[in-house]
Amino acid sequence: MEGFSVELSNFGYESPKGLGIEWTEMNLSAFLTSAGINSAICVVLLLLYSILRKQPGNVNVYFGQRLARLRSGNHDPSLIDRFVPSASWILKAWKTSEEEILAIGGLDAVVFLRTLVFSIRIFSVAAIICTFLVLPLNYFGREMQHKHIPSESLDAWGPLFCVIRHILLCLCSSLLCKDVLVLFNNEYKSIAKMRLAHVTRSHSNPSNFTVLVRAIPRSSGESYSDLVTKFFSDYYSSSYLSHQMVYRSRTVQRLVSNAEKMYKMLKFCSTQQQYGSSFIRCGLCGGTANSFKIVSRQSKNVKRSDPDLREKECAAALVFFRTRYAAFVASQALQSSNPMLWVTDLAPEPHDLCWKNLCIPYKLLWIRRIASLLAFIVFMFFFLVPVSLVTGLASLDKLQNTFPFMRRILKRKFMNQLVTGYLPSVILILFLYIVPPLMMLFSAVEGYLSRSGRKRSACLKVLYFYIWNVFFANILVGSVITRLSTLSSPKDVPSLLAKVLPQKAFFFMTYVLTSGWASLACEVVQPFSLLCNLFRRFIFRKKDVLSFSAMSFPFHTEIPRVLLFGFLGFTFSILAPLILPFLLVYFCLAYLVYRNQFHVKFLSVISRKILNVYITRYQSGGLYWPIVHSATIFSLLLTQIIALGVFGIKKSPVASSFTIPLIICTLFFNMYCRQRFLPIFKNNVVQVLIEMDRQDEQGGKLEGIHEQLYSAYCQFPSTSPTLYTNVSLNEHENGADDKLQDLEGNKPGPDEASSSGSSPSKPDK
Amino acid sequence: MEGFSVELSNFGYESPKGLGIEWTEMNLSAFLTSAGINSAICVVLLLLYSILRKQPGNVNVYFGQRLARLRSGNHDPSLIDRFVPSASWILKAWKTSEEEILAIGGLDAVVFLRTLVFSIRIFSVAAIICTFLVLPLNYFGREMQHKHIPSESLDAWGPLFCVIRHILLCLCSSLLCKDVLVLFNNEYKSIAKMRLAHVTRSHSNPSNFTVLVRAIPRSSGESYSDLVTKFFSDYYSSSYLSHQMVYRSRTVQRLVSNAEKMYKMLKFCSTQQQYGSSFIRCGLCGGTANSFKIVSRQSKNVKRSDPDLREKECAAALVFFRTRYAAFVASQALQSSNPMLWVTDLAPEPHDLCWKNLCIPYKLLWIRRIASLLAFIVFMFFFLVPVSLVTGLASLDKLQNTFPFMRRILKRKFMNQLVTGYLPSVILILFLYIVPPLMMLFSAVEGYLSRSGRKRSACLKVLYFYIWNVFFANILVGSVITRLSTLSSPKDVPSLLAKVLPQKAFFFMTYVLTSGWASLACEVVQPFSLLCNLFRRFIFRKKDVLSFSAMSFPFHTEIPRVLLFGFLGFTFSILAPLILPFLLVYFCLAYLVYRNQFHVKFLSVISRKILNVYITRYQSGGLYWPIVHSATIFSLLLTQIIALGVFGIKKSPVASSFTIPLIICTLFFNMYCRQRFLPIFKNNVVQVLIEMDRQDEQGGKLEGIHEQLYSAYCQFPSTSPTLYTNVSLNEHENGADDKLQDLEGNKPGPDEASSSGSSPSKPDK
Repeated sequence: MEGFSVELSNFGYESPKGLGIEWTEMNLSAFLTSAGINSAICVVLLLLYSILRKQPGNVNVYFGQRLARLRSGNHDPSLIDRFVPSASWILKAWKTSEEEILAIGGLDAVVFLRTLVFSIRIFSVAAIICTFLVLPLNYFGREMQHKHIPSESLDAWGPLFCVIRHILLCLCSSLLCKDVLVLFNNEYKSIAKMRLAHVTRSHSNPSNFTVLVRAIPRSSGESYSDLVTKFFSDYYSSSYLSHQMVYRSRTVQRLVSNAEKMYKMLKFCSTQQQYGSSFIRCGLCGGTANSFKIVSRQSKNVKRSDPDLREKECAAALVFFRTRYAAFVASQALQSSNPMLWVTDLAPEPHDLCWKNLCIPYKLLWIRRIASLLAFIVFMFFFLVPVSLVTGLASLDKLQNTFPFMRRILKRKFMNQLVTGYLPSVILILFLYIVPPLMMLFSAVEGYLSRSGRKRSACLKVLYFYIWNVFFANILVGSVITRLSTLSSPKDVPSLLAKVLPQKAFFFMTYVLTSGWASLACEVVQPFSLLCNLFRRFIFRKKDVLSFSAMSFPFHTEIPRVLLFGFLGFTFSILAPLILPFLLVYFCLAYLVYRNQFHVKFLSVISRKILNVYITRYQSGGLYWPIVHSATIFSLLLTQIIALGVFGIKKSPVASSFTIPLIICTLFFNMYCRQRFLPIFKNNVVQVLIEMDRQDEQGGKLEGIHEQLYSAYCQFPSTSPTLYTNVSLNEHENGADDKLQDLEGNKPGPDEASSSGSSPSKPDK
Repeated sequence: MEGFSVELSNFGYESPKGLGIEWTEMNLSAFLTSAGINSAICVVLLLLYSILRKQPGNVNVYFGQRLARLRSGNHDPSLIDRFVPSASWILKAWKTSEEEILAIGGLDAVVFLRTLVFSIRIFSVAAIICTFLVLPLNYFGREMQHKHIPSESLDAWGPLFCVIRHILLCLCSSLLCKDVLVLFNNEYKSIAKMRLAHVTRSHSNPSNFTVLVRAIPRSSGESYSDLVTKFFSDYYSSSYLSHQMVYRSRTVQRLVSNAEKMYKMLKFCSTQQQYGSSFIRCGLCGGTANSFKIVSRQSKNVKRSDPDLREKECAAALVFFRTRYAAFVASQALQSSNPMLWVTDLAPEPHDLCWKNLCIPYKLLWIRRIASLLAFIVFMFFFLVPVSLVTGLASLDKLQNTFPFMRRILKRKFMNQLVTGYLPSVILILFLYIVPPLMMLFSAVEGYLSRSGRKRSACLKVLYFYIWNVFFANILVGSVITRLSTLSSPKDVPSLLAKVLPQKAFFFMTYVLTSGWASLACEVVQPFSLLCNLFRRFIFRKKDVLSFSAMSFPFHTEIPRVLLFGFLGFTFSILAPLILPFLLVYFCLAYLVYRNQFHVKFLSVISRKILNVYITRYQSGGLYWPIVHSATIFSLLLTQIIALGVFGIKKSPVASSFTIPLIICTLFFNMYCRQRFLPIFKNNVVQVLIEMDRQDEQGGKLEGIHEQLYSAYCQFPSTSPTLYTNVSLNEHENGADDKLQDLEGNKPGPDEASSSGSSPSKPDK
């Protein structure tokens, strides 16, 4: 325990004497209280989960909606088994292979789990290095002060001790740096490979053939659809296939529901259901093709039936091309001499497309983007209020003066420890819960074309927010204002950080426990879904499990949290390495929990893979990795700057001149990655696209893909649930999920079902 | 005079009392001394120029090398005319139309002159606004203090005066902002149009058809040339035409000179000179075409004669495509799944291409770029030494203490004024003279593909350097260290700037005089060239004017200087508007001088246009304009931040809340320009390229252009001057200059000469 408190108060050789040991010991007991509470919560919740997941009533909470029906009645465990906690889920989660996760959770899930593995590797190395090098040093330093050695011999020892410490710190930071760079390089390489493989495998992905055109110029005589036909058959005559206009939603939605009613009436007369659904879904296609004569004939009827439809067109369209290469080329180019007209982008995947945002005038987009940025900045600064509230809780004297009635309560030691240790981080976390939805809102305002793009933008915003408001604001608000009065110059930032960080270590360790451990336990138990489920079952007495909708994975809250913890780990690693074991436990637990959430179950009944909790309707194809890259590089750089602050530029020029090459090295590595790997994430590779086109052409598959294109994008999904299931599952999810429709009605034979898993990597699942 | 000095010392309502009036009056007299010296220098040099330019001996200094021969003997002015100063050159410069400058100086010259015109417009408006609004206000404020009004009534007047002042300043800055944004929008629009026209007109530009491939991967069996053929005929089979390898220079240069000797021997036997020169110049082409059988047959001989040639190939090649569109598409795409291989870019124009840099391994380029950046940053900080020297000169006491012998000299009033007023800016300018060549060196290290790209990068570096080291370093070094001790927080920067700027106004006014007026006069007289010419003529007694090489325009020194003055004008406009008239005079003078330098003369003899001083061998096509844009927006933003500092965020929240919308407005405008205009400068427009291809195809010109392609790029120009003239003028400069070769030998008839001006807009002149 001695060495422990030394760690934090006394580590800096030039530690602030005024704060002394009392301060740290008070903090230590507060921290232990908080650690006890959080560990207890964590253990209880995990045990609860291992029981709850076995209850048949909760199966739709923990195993997604579709599994529900299949499971009930088949594998009912015995009553004793049901109420005994077990670790079987951990084993199952551990056994899941990466290929299975890739096949179901998509590349994004793999990237997320890889980030966790990378963090575990780095911080286990860091923990070993720092425990063997930094901790004994601190203990030795403390012992020397304790033994009351006469000051002369301390003075004689002082410089030597200082030199040893600097050498060891240099060693630590260079080992850490080398380790991170080597590991990260390997990870980046393998994820870049995965991304290429992801593109190569997605042969039937319609988004590769589709270009999204926005800002079609107005023309008095012609409709937007005619303009699109004219433009693309003029400039891309050899590769232009067809297009599909985008319509303003409300009016057309009404139209579609009318048509649906009509269809229901006609259904009894019609023999072929297939054409009917095509008619409803893609009756609004602008282009025509031979194989779709029936559809287009019917669509003409629709057009004739509503002459206003032309006026409902947005200045946006989906344009289909013959080859992937042609679509890619068309999407990349600057079409018009006015860059605000004929703006082209590669279309997102059908499920990923935000139809609503396509109708936003392109001219307004950049204004929306700035407005969202301004709102974000304002919110960042307004959030300083709860942060300073949290900091205020640590200084109890003020609180007692303001609220005299609290004095009696706070006199109890336990309550005191609770308020100073546990409460601040709980309050911070409660405030932080509003951040991800708000950032999602900001990103929604920006009008992204794809859901995944919106989520990625929200992810970045949340990350900036966390690093600024959890880390910097907490450190600077608490320390600059109350203790060090003013920041004299930017040059002093490193030494300021080096001084303040050890003092703040307890707070961040508590934060890791509360926000990390306890949140993970909540994540696995899913209390919100559980409560909803309970309410529905016991209060509203509903049995319809299908009405409960499964969620897609909240990458925009989970990735920033993991990166924030990585950031804390890096920055504290050389100053207060005792935070590392707690982080390591978090990362390991997170790895198991998220594997479980993504994890795949083989069901013997229909031998198909189904997700545990989250469904993956769209994915970005690993585009979260560059964010992980930037965050890691930033963390590493800040760590090195803090090391510079510890050495003190003037006090030991040798040690600080040793750190500067590390910084330069990190910057070089960053540049290298941006040159070598980043372009793959930003652009498609021509070689790959051409090879894919050739394979399809030689295999004669291209025609089939072209026909599928017409029905791939559907702006107005049918509103009645049965129709929707028939249509969307039949045509969109015809990869691994193509037989899910049968859950509603006729069950397929076992042969048919097993053959349906032939293309498990289809990206539009 | 009273109002004048008030202006600078007393403008800030919270002016530093300790410095008082003596300080400013001493500065005022020092400034007047400096103004006198500079004006005298300027007038004398301009008069000198009007005489010197009429001397036949200097014709090659002031009218380029090619004019020299044509002129001598033809228009010899009378002796009296020759030695009487005249303003005829100003008239001639004024009369030149923009089309003429565009035709000869290229788009870059027009952009440069447009920047000057824009500055004149803005600052004449600013001068009017500020003279009528700000100056009377200052005078009134001064009068109030002078009349020794009892303090009570001053206190009563004080707030009212403050409010009036704030309202007027708000008015000023908003008028200025509106003015700048409206004018700049128009300018940007017209320059974007010009850029599009520039592309459209350059029908025979070979660079539009050419893609530069670097980082061709190594293969054990095959040569680079074979790999290129294989790759491009595989993936771009429909549009790939041919290619030309790049060779390591030294060995091949030796080969070429050997071949040349051989050619000279053969010359007597050969009947067709044309083939001979092609043989030498393009005998190393990798591709073959029917129309070039002779050349390629000979080139095969060359290859057979030196089996080592294959080993001399670099991993880079010029690849020619059938259409502009195909070349553009190929240049934009990411070719390989390893982004560090098969890197493609659109090739620069033949004269613009840096052959040397093509052989640098692509993997090293980013390392070179970082190294250059680091060197730049280090140099930026080392340059603070001369800057603080300059600042030190202002405080004479210290100087006298260090060098006691100077005390006697400095006792004379004039010397004192000279040292405090004139010397500092002269020393600064002398140090600044080494900056542009050094920045050019840094940019050269970065390995740019084109000369214009290198120059543009140097231009940016010089601009950063000027703004940092002339403006910020001067203000902060002088003020922060000696007067205000420490910068307490970033929030105080605006108010610090507002306080310090008026004190520094004298120095910057002197700087404008010295660096602006006097440099312009030097620019027009070209003292260095003149001296060289004199030495050659009178000391070495050489008569060969041709050996004197004409320069291309130093955009990388002139554009940053003009932008720096614009920056000074903006930042001082609301605090010390008396700098504006001096700037205005500079801009007007600069406009005349640079028009004269670019200006075009019609020579009746062969009725052709020739540059005055500079030749334009390559151009960037207006790519300097985005730099002007960024610099202007930055200046405007800083002005508004300074205004914020004047109001003081706490002191008058109304006024500062009035400034914040201006800042947001400026940011919005910046984003708008980046969206609306910038893409045109960054990319080619597909619509334009396809239209050009169609026109050429329909006109049957495409074949001819393809044939020209083979000889357009020549890595090893012949070393002997006569051959060079024959070849390069005959093939490269076959636009307006295609008959210049005849100056060396046979003169063409008048019909032939006049018809040669038919394509004056050819960009590779």
